[in-house]
Amino acid sequence: MARTIRLAVIAGDGIGPEVVAEGIKVLDAVLAGSDVSVERTEFELGAKRWHDTGETLTDEDLAAISTHDAILLGAVGDPTVPSGVLERGLLLKLRFALDHYVNLRPSVLYPGVPTPLANPGDVDFVVVREGTEGPYTGNGGALRVGTPHEIATEVSVNTAFGVERVVRDAFARAQARPRKKLTLVHKHNVLVNAGHLWRRTVDAVAEEFPEITVDYAHVDAATIYMVTDPARFDVIVTDNLFGDIITDLAAAITGGIGLAASGNVNPDGAFPSMFEPVHGSAPDIAGKSLADPTATVLSVALLLEHLGLPEQAQRISNAVTSDIVSRDGSARSTVEIGDALAARVAG
Amino acid sequence: MARTIRLAVIAGDGIGPEVVAEGIKVLDAVLAGSDVSVERTEFELGAKRWHDTGETLTDEDLAAISTHDAILLGAVGDPTVPSGVLERGLLLKLRFALDHYVNLRPSVLYPGVPTPLANPGDVDFVVVREGTEGPYTGNGGALRVGTPHEIATEVSVNTAFGVERVVRDAFARAQARPRKKLTLVHKHNVLVNAGHLWRRTVDAVAEEFPEITVDYAHVDAATIYMVTDPARFDVIVTDNLFGDIITDLAAAITGGIGLAASGNVNPDGAFPSMFEPVHGSAPDIAGKSLADPTATVLSVALLLEHLGLPEQAQRISNAVTSDIVSRDGSARSTVEIGDALAARVAG
Ligand SMILES: CC(C)[C@H](C(=O)O)[C@@H](O)C(=O)O
Ligand SMILES: CC(C)[C@H](C(=O)O)[C@@H](O)C(=O)O
Repeated sequence: MARTIRLAVIAGDGIGPEVVAEGIKVLDAVLAGSDVSVERTEFELGAKRWHDTGETLTDEDLAAISTHDAILLGAVGDPTVPSGVLERGLLLKLRFALDHYVNLRPSVLYPGVPTPLANPGDVDFVVVREGTEGPYTGNGGALRVGTPHEIATEVSVNTAFGVERVVRDAFARAQARPRKKLTLVHKHNVLVNAGHLWRRTVDAVAEEFPEITVDYAHVDAATIYMVTDPARFDVIVTDNLFGDIITDLAAAITGGIGLAASGNVNPDGAFPSMFEPVHGSAPDIAGKSLADPTATVLSVALLLEHLGLPEQAQRISNAVTSDIVSRDGSARSTVEIGDALAARVAG
Repeated sequence: MARTIRLAVIAGDGIGPEVVAEGIKVLDAVLAGSDVSVERTEFELGAKRWHDTGETLTDEDLAAISTHDAILLGAVGDPTVPSGVLERGLLLKLRFALDHYVNLRPSVLYPGVPTPLANPGDVDFVVVREGTEGPYTGNGGALRVGTPHEIATEVSVNTAFGVERVVRDAFARAQARPRKKLTLVHKHNVLVNAGHLWRRTVDAVAEEFPEITVDYAHVDAATIYMVTDPARFDVIVTDNLFGDIITDLAAAITGGIGLAASGNVNPDGAFPSMFEPVHGSAPDIAGKSLADPTATVLSVALLLEHLGLPEQAQRISNAVTSDIVSRDGSARSTVEIGDALAARVAG
């Protein structure tokens, strides 16, 4: 039965458009000749739009994006725009408005991939980062700005509703994995209010998943494990900010952010989920075809998996794995890597 | 001229008493035969005291501690005490009450020290972590605890006063180092209120230090640099929570938390400064003489330096360096390492 995926594409800033072009190339290649087709709508959002109109994401944009089945996003942020404007006005606004409460970030160390660690071990874990609460809510403010009496606050907001749903999702993912282990990462010895809510929630949900081994690490200790024993992790569930920090570190130890994919998932299906590389817009290398599009391509695999097309997702993962194994250290452009991956998934 | 250091000793929980005993042993050894003597007062604070009396740190304790020239602390926290009680009621209460706004954490990769990194490079930086603000203030709270409608908040508080004084201290430290580089670590693209205060403050103070090269990294990116290029860092200035996280990671890449020293410094001298290893109470190895006391011994060196005894501090650093170089991988007890270091500083 023929099927059409309605895909919203937000290429964004910096290297965003370059890597997204390759992601779409591979998506088209993996679906070529099948009964699944893609209908794309490009959304011109990011620095240029903001400079031209002062807009980051209007209600109309959001309504139009919401009618799609999924979103592919490149990267957001530009040095010509004040810090925070695009991040909060566009990227985080999408994550919050579309209720992307599961920010999914797998970390796998593929064979042959260079890692800064001397003895990484067998690294294969997934971070389930909460996506709609924590210090990312935009609560807080500032008084007497620019004076010696300035005070600025940031409020981390955590609700039983918000914590429970993401913890439940993480347990379900742990249940589906062979090692069946879940690690809560927080800092409950200092952030006692939020920390104790997270902890009690994990303890409560754990009762429904008797097969899962539950572990805990403070976020500071988690960064130590990430470099001394990353193989200990299976599923990590954590707050929005801690998740931001440890997933960059996780990417660094598994070959760098050129390979790290992510999904901003609304598991309820009420809103389209959004898939994007973990890396940022990297303005320093933008426009030079130096960016590795693999993270975006792997994000396309997560997208296909999410849309119920696991076979096609697997073909992309396999293509990436064999491409990585075949890398001989010679430099390839963004387009060359995309072409190579497209050829592999088609083959 | 004879001089007496009045030292408050808080051994604390877990491995705290074990490592503190060795720190004092080395302190006594380095001062032996000199005209500097130490007058110690032990403060029984931590899990036992709390179990016996329900007290963590009373006004009387604090007043008594405040009359000392410096504090040596082992570690605080115990699984038999609810999470947060000792951390917030004792350790953080000391840091806040004694206005330890400079939390100083040097990271040096000594020659021969095992590191998880394949190519660490020449690592020698110091993190100046703010110690009296940020998400550590204990602001925030919880409503409807234990119900499906629970909401828990944590408030990061940042003031121009608090940020400026620590930034100024960090610039002065950078000025005294050969590379003269300062990196602000924050997350100003998301935590815009606090982030912009930090950023503006760094920009303003930078004008007074024209020789310093100023750099910026988001905290997530900083964790990447920490494993891919830690040699890029010279002085890092950052917020209380980000400092907590990156200094554990920094310790991990420079030989582990068994070697990481810290000072909670009140540069104004209004209150005694407090020196402690970065590691925690490690209840799993407590009482087994398995802990490495080197971090505590190096904290004693920071203490001596702070008290204007740089020659003695240097002797301790030298002793640690040569002890580390001579390590052959055979296991030594906490006491054996302390004995070896005491012999080296005396020699
Ligand atoms: C760009 C930024 C707002 C974003 C975040 O902090 O979530 C990025 O770092 C990420 O991890 O997706
Ligand atoms: C024990 C804990 C409260 C403390 C902190 O978070 O500051 C510790 O991790 C540290 O880094 O000194």
